[in-house]
Amino acid sequence: MATKKMILDLDTGVDDAMAIAYALAAPEADLIGITSAYGNTLVDTAAQNSLKLLEVLGATDVPVFLGESHSSTSDSFQTMEISKAIHGQNGIGDVELPLAERALENKSAVDFIIESAHNFGEDLIIVPTGPLTNLAAAFEKDPEINKLIGNITIMGGALTVPGNVTPYTEANINQDLAAADFVFKKAKNLVMVGLDVTLQTLLTKKETAQWRQLGTKKAQVFADIFDYYIDAYYNLDINKDGAALHDPLAVGVAVDPDLVTLLPINMQVTTDDGRTIGDLSRLKDPVKNNFAAVAIDPQNYLDRFMEYMLKVLS
Amino acid sequence: MATKKMILDLDTGVDDAMAIAYALAAPEADLIGITSAYGNTLVDTAAQNSLKLLEVLGATDVPVFLGESHSSTSDSFQTMEISKAIHGQNGIGDVELPLAERALENKSAVDFIIESAHNFGEDLIIVPTGPLTNLAAAFEKDPEINKLIGNITIMGGALTVPGNVTPYTEANINQDLAAADFVFKKAKNLVMVGLDVTLQTLLTKKETAQWRQLGTKKAQVFADIFDYYIDAYYNLDINKDGAALHDPLAVGVAVDPDLVTLLPINMQVTTDDGRTIGDLSRLKDPVKNNFAAVAIDPQNYLDRFMEYMLKVLS
Repeated sequence: MATKKMILDLDTGVDDAMAIAYALAAPEADLIGITSAYGNTLVDTAAQNSLKLLEVLGATDVPVFLGESHSSTSDSFQTMEISKAIHGQNGIGDVELPLAERALENKSAVDFIIESAHNFGEDLIIVPTGPLTNLAAAFEKDPEINKLIGNITIMGGALTVPGNVTPYTEANINQDLAAADFVFKKAKNLVMVGLDVTLQTLLTKKETAQWRQLGTKKAQVFADIFDYYIDAYYNLDINKDGAALHDPLAVGVAVDPDLVTLLPINMQVTTDDGRTIGDLSRLKDPVKNNFAAVAIDPQNYLDRFMEYMLKVLS
Repeated sequence: MATKKMILDLDTGVDDAMAIAYALAAPEADLIGITSAYGNTLVDTAAQNSLKLLEVLGATDVPVFLGESHSSTSDSFQTMEISKAIHGQNGIGDVELPLAERALENKSAVDFIIESAHNFGEDLIIVPTGPLTNLAAAFEKDPEINKLIGNITIMGGALTVPGNVTPYTEANINQDLAAADFVFKKAKNLVMVGLDVTLQTLLTKKETAQWRQLGTKKAQVFADIFDYYIDAYYNLDINKDGAALHDPLAVGVAVDPDLVTLLPINMQVTTDDGRTIGDLSRLKDPVKNNFAAVAIDPQNYLDRFMEYMLKVLS
């Protein structure tokens, strides 16, 4: 696979932090920028977290752009208490990192997405791991780009399993139902990496202990961040066997779709209850623009994840 | 594929009638009996319809057994008005057929299922196209048989598309949620042929006109029955492009699983809203006992269906 230009659209976030590290390690991806979203935390906090984490990883050439601060159907956003419990008050497991030396770009996330779509077209992969508000806003502002962007691989949704906010909806989708429905229907090629597969890829303290053994500062930082998340999963009784690698799995699938089984299906997001489900009006359309990840070999992905993380944290 | 022993469990029903014809035509199946269910009509009517249709088709060697008359969680059953509108007052498109010369068997549907499970084991395929009440009752009465029956291929459920009774549930599942959940979890090898695929296989009057051209009485009967259903789909605005081959598709997949794409997944039926959806408690279990049909090449199936129907109606 030729190297693809990648934009991460992150509400950084513990597992978003892992997504940054994975993207930097993946030889198939050239990370050209991070756009920031609200969700696991406020958009400003998410942006600063991304800047800080890029510095920890020595990737100070990756620009960070500020995105929309709230959903397309609301006037403001407050981080949910459950998000703070899972990701920490600061979004990155309450691990204190120095203020970033770099500043955010002046350009907006929406404009960077539009510009990149025109610059790279088919070679561009966008990986949103939060609400789809930025992408929907970019599609609205420039109605050409949905046909230009080669691939959008999202972490979000739940097709064959219940949701995690309600039995019907998954957290990222739930933040902005209208934006999600718009993006699912408009995107040329949208891969949904949802709870169907991400709940199968669990990381434990056994693996983060391997990071610590590298003896580097960055390995310690990433292990501390993820251990907070493992403890939260345990204490909140989300999962006692480990914590789900939601966001880095989306990056993994974006660069190597063979990690999962993809079902071609034209989907909708129901704007009453937030289901990501087949759109009956396009069921028999032979052209499919959505592809849902419905099965995975978890160990295969975990091996890849650990290979990449041990490389980037060394 | 070696010939398999097949039991059809039918709430006969227009598309159930097509399932009988398809099963008789399929060289891969030896139809050893029909058990009767309530659903599209009352269980007694369903049983008599099956007897009558077998006589029309000259298959008077296939025994018919009476099943449960209502769900496992109720005391009685009334046919829904929508069922009468779709299938006719008599269940078979208001086409009048002579009273069957044969009688029903004295043995119950439940006992015939249990006996067949012990007699044929792995070689037995059961195809329920209505509620799963009979099968659940058989599993309850003889807790060994769920491990004996080689394959259960049901018409019912909706995994990747909305339901047809509510956005969550499909009509057959909805008749007896508790029985469905029990059978999904207990079955060794249950294939779900749900709305995901059956809504893609539509028959029109163009095809039933081909049956009529055969010039036989049975072809005329089956065309009259199905034309009623096509008109109902049109008039009730269910689908203006044709009527879904729900039940005969289940028979088709039972004898040739390659007609669809099967997703291995451990499922549950939610007893509040009747979803057929992944069971999170068994998501990571490498052993899968349910297989959901999630994609189909409709023309490929329609070609097979017409080949079999033209053969059996000649």
